[in-house]
Amino acid sequence: MGRVVLKYGGSSVATIEKMQLLAPKILQRAILGEQIVIVVSAMGNSTNHLLDLAKKASSHPPKREIDLLISTGEQVSISLFTMVLKEMGGDAIALTGFQAGIHTIGSHTKNKIKEIDTRVIEKHLEAGKIVVVAGFQGLNDEGDITTLGRGGSDTTAVAIAAKLHTHAEIYTDVDGIYGVDPRLFPQAKKINTITYEEMKEMAFLGAKVMEPRSIEIGHRYGVKIYVASAHGDVAGTWIMEESPVEEKQITGLSISQKVVMVTLRNVPNKPRVIADLFAALAQNEVNVDIISKTTSIQDLINVAFTASSDDFEAIETVVQSIQKNIPSIEPYYESNIVKVSVVGTGMRTQSGVAAKLFTLLADHDIEFKLVTTSEISISYTMDKSYQEIAVQVIASAFGL
Amino acid sequence: MGRVVLKYGGSSVATIEKMQLLAPKILQRAILGEQIVIVVSAMGNSTNHLLDLAKKASSHPPKREIDLLISTGEQVSISLFTMVLKEMGGDAIALTGFQAGIHTIGSHTKNKIKEIDTRVIEKHLEAGKIVVVAGFQGLNDEGDITTLGRGGSDTTAVAIAAKLHTHAEIYTDVDGIYGVDPRLFPQAKKINTITYEEMKEMAFLGAKVMEPRSIEIGHRYGVKIYVASAHGDVAGTWIMEESPVEEKQITGLSISQKVVMVTLRNVPNKPRVIADLFAALAQNEVNVDIISKTTSIQDLINVAFTASSDDFEAIETVVQSIQKNIPSIEPYYESNIVKVSVVGTGMRTQSGVAAKLFTLLADHDIEFKLVTTSEISISYTMDKSYQEIAVQVIASAFGL
Repeated sequence: MGRVVLKYGGSSVATIEKMQLLAPKILQRAILGEQIVIVVSAMGNSTNHLLDLAKKASSHPPKREIDLLISTGEQVSISLFTMVLKEMGGDAIALTGFQAGIHTIGSHTKNKIKEIDTRVIEKHLEAGKIVVVAGFQGLNDEGDITTLGRGGSDTTAVAIAAKLHTHAEIYTDVDGIYGVDPRLFPQAKKINTITYEEMKEMAFLGAKVMEPRSIEIGHRYGVKIYVASAHGDVAGTWIMEESPVEEKQITGLSISQKVVMVTLRNVPNKPRVIADLFAALAQNEVNVDIISKTTSIQDLINVAFTASSDDFEAIETVVQSIQKNIPSIEPYYESNIVKVSVVGTGMRTQSGVAAKLFTLLADHDIEFKLVTTSEISISYTMDKSYQEIAVQVIASAFGL
Repeated sequence: MGRVVLKYGGSSVATIEKMQLLAPKILQRAILGEQIVIVVSAMGNSTNHLLDLAKKASSHPPKREIDLLISTGEQVSISLFTMVLKEMGGDAIALTGFQAGIHTIGSHTKNKIKEIDTRVIEKHLEAGKIVVVAGFQGLNDEGDITTLGRGGSDTTAVAIAAKLHTHAEIYTDVDGIYGVDPRLFPQAKKINTITYEEMKEMAFLGAKVMEPRSIEIGHRYGVKIYVASAHGDVAGTWIMEESPVEEKQITGLSISQKVVMVTLRNVPNKPRVIADLFAALAQNEVNVDIISKTTSIQDLINVAFTASSDDFEAIETVVQSIQKNIPSIEPYYESNIVKVSVVGTGMRTQSGVAAKLFTLLADHDIEFKLVTTSEISISYTMDKSYQEIAVQVIASAFGL
């Protein structure tokens, strides 16, 4: 009998009414013989509401208790979703993360799944029940309730699918994955299939549909992931090993909006100095993205890097402490920056993508500040004023 | 080092601000060296809010999922209370029912505590932490989250106190136990100490301060229970084995408001018929309270009983089905009835309480319908119009 894991995000289960809209489709599939696991997120904005209470209770809420607090969000949604399914004639059972056998490891509020003991899930599936599992949460070795951080429910769904040797269907408020965000480029085309690598690269580069972690798990265990609209009927996008359609030069274009670019002038050209800088940034949990260093025959060089603008304060603190030892360093911060990235496994085998892009940018007088390349992507940082024209030009030229 | 279990009800922890008012008193006691376990209920009306969602999701919400749903209420309050305590400089840790080792047994939404494994609580107490435990909930042998029904948080607190060999302090929105409800008799005096038996009898007879179940556990394990106001500073009431003060004839007076009185006329005077009636009522979960049967030399007698007015429909159904077999029965329902009960262990040793009561009622032209007595209480049912004068007369005569 076919098995499937369906995941519904918070906006898809924001109200009882929305759950009641989803239930008939699920029950129909159950009647047709599928064994169904449903992973749900917390309803709507309930997690943020709980976090607001935590902020009111404490200036630095302890993370163990944050996990305990926000994990109630999914516990509420699985209980209610199960009630809706049963009310409509289905046989269903709700399981919290720990009841579903999800063991986690790591720091509170950003745990990783260590292992899933799917015996309870499988027992209920075999008994003909729809199993409704709380996404985003688990239990660690100390018996503490934990949460998985951003995209945690997707991760739960893909990891359960891996253990059950089936695929995962991720239902969300978008109807699939587009080559370009349709809000930026209304003519954007939906992608029917995309490889794990391309999707991971796009996610890392700013596409918000899925977190890289869940795609990584799908990739490692060969779990096909289908992304589609929760409430629509149009076909979505499959994320899988090999795209069966003809290979394109570029699959997608992503924009990262919240970018800060830091240029440090007059840095001594010594490996130790640069190593210390990035070690200090890492210690302060700054995720550095693009790094650029001028080659110089002189003793002083320029070092530039980008990071999330959320980390602005942490970066300033680190730079100030380094300036105490090396007063020559002059920092220069730019926050009105976007990163435009193009992704496609086609770049591996088809040459000339980089050349075509540089020409396009030059033809349209688009100035970029930094450029970085990976095996399957090229990213440019540029002033936000160029974003619109860059998206138009690239998406049109590559038929996204 | 002294240990104590403190319990705070939902209205005492309804907001972060209320928690912030409670925290300094608790922290002060911790600084003075007490090992403190705090049991909290769900914040304010949050449980009712969750039950409303359940009713919206299902006409007959499955009870297993109701437990899963409403148990989030205490999980939220322990998380936030712990944050408040830590923010104010205390060292605290939040534990859900299952994390605190509370094993339960029975039907969902009305489980009983089977056993408490206090090793985790004691480990944290020894480490100097204030342990904040979710009341009202536990885990059964199947690994399902359960709740303990009405007064469940009191039960949790008293049961933990029993295992830790200490007393329980129940903080609530009243400042102790009164001989008569002060809303009915403003001159009512607060009781300093009351025995378990008296308190149980008063709770069964309608006093709403504590549920009988937690007092029963306190009685069985010799746990002294202190009931006082969460936010006030006046002395409360101790519930304990023996009242150290001089014995009074009557300790308290309770009123049950939601009473229906049913009189069945022309019932065949056969034990089987009466047995079948009360068996059918029990099967329909009607809790029959007072039962009265006219002695008669004839073949037909009258049977009267009282029950909660919540059970009115169930009673009607039972009576109608019995009428089908015995058409002679004429039912007569009175719903504007109250039950006035006086309680006191002093009745055991001091005679004349009943006589004094009957005289009081007669002197003031108070007509009662039924009377019933236990070893330590006497209850009268009467028309609601007599309630006020009955309370005045009895409370004044016995100095309550």
